[in-house]
Amino acid sequence: MKTLKQILDGKRGPLVSVAPDDSVFKALQVMAEYNVGAVLVIDKEQLLGIVSERDYARKVSLQDKSSRDTLVREIMSDKVVYVTPDQTVDECMAIMTERHFRHLPVLDDDLSLLGIVSIGDVVKETISEQQFIIQQMGKYISG
Amino acid sequence: MKTLKQILDGKRGPLVSVAPDDSVFKALQVMAEYNVGAVLVIDKEQLLGIVSERDYARKVSLQDKSSRDTLVREIMSDKVVYVTPDQTVDECMAIMTERHFRHLPVLDDDLSLLGIVSIGDVVKETISEQQFIIQQMGKYISG
Repeated sequence: MKTLKQILDGKRGPLVSVAPDDSVFKALQVMAEYNVGAVLVIDKEQLLGIVSERDYARKVSLQDKSSRDTLVREIMSDKVVYVTPDQTVDECMAIMTERHFRHLPVLDDDLSLLGIVSIGDVVKETISEQQFIIQQMGKYISG
Repeated sequence: MKTLKQILDGKRGPLVSVAPDDSVFKALQVMAEYNVGAVLVIDKEQLLGIVSERDYARKVSLQDKSSRDTLVREIMSDKVVYVTPDQTVDECMAIMTERHFRHLPVLDDDLSLLGIVSIGDVVKETISEQQFIIQQMGKYISG
């Protein structure tokens, strides 16, 4: 079972973030550019929250706001649940299911930000572990 | 390993859908009401597509459109990949990872629509299977 540190090491690309006073429109541009469903909200190197496609779908036009006139801080989730790099994929899966999250930031013990793990990463890793187990069982059976 | 039929049987609530000529705003209302991230697009009992939070995040305000003046048919994904009720959770997982989908409609052999399976359902089921295996291993070890 891989730890989150190993998963993050395998992910390419920079850590994508926006500022709390960026517009929601800017956040959507960043999500589209990096093809992700959520971005971290960071101010002065401090993690303030996370803003996702879901926040946009629920809290902008349904509340008669527009993405250009709404700030990220108005719709972000600011009670951020995070995981540490030594936790496993299974632990991540359990938190995601229980809390209905699709993204979890990974923070070190000193609260420095290491990355973000998505439900897609977790599923991908689970599949590759299953394939590994099947392969090993095949080897065992065939002697 | 459960089949999708068993997963669908365990899900409560009606099958949520919109019409292709509904506004995107209406689709967002439906998603919020049922707390889901995607809805099927159905016309005359025929499945035409699927519309998700992601379609909204990528194809409405970023393209200078508004949710009230845009129709579901303009942003929906109309090449719908589906699964059949006898397929397993692992097969679903593989398709979702490979194609970057978070939702898959489940259609019977006669193409009648049985339901929709989300990446959250798949993860939840995987966890409960792992817990079952751990429980069984515990029983075995303890005699």
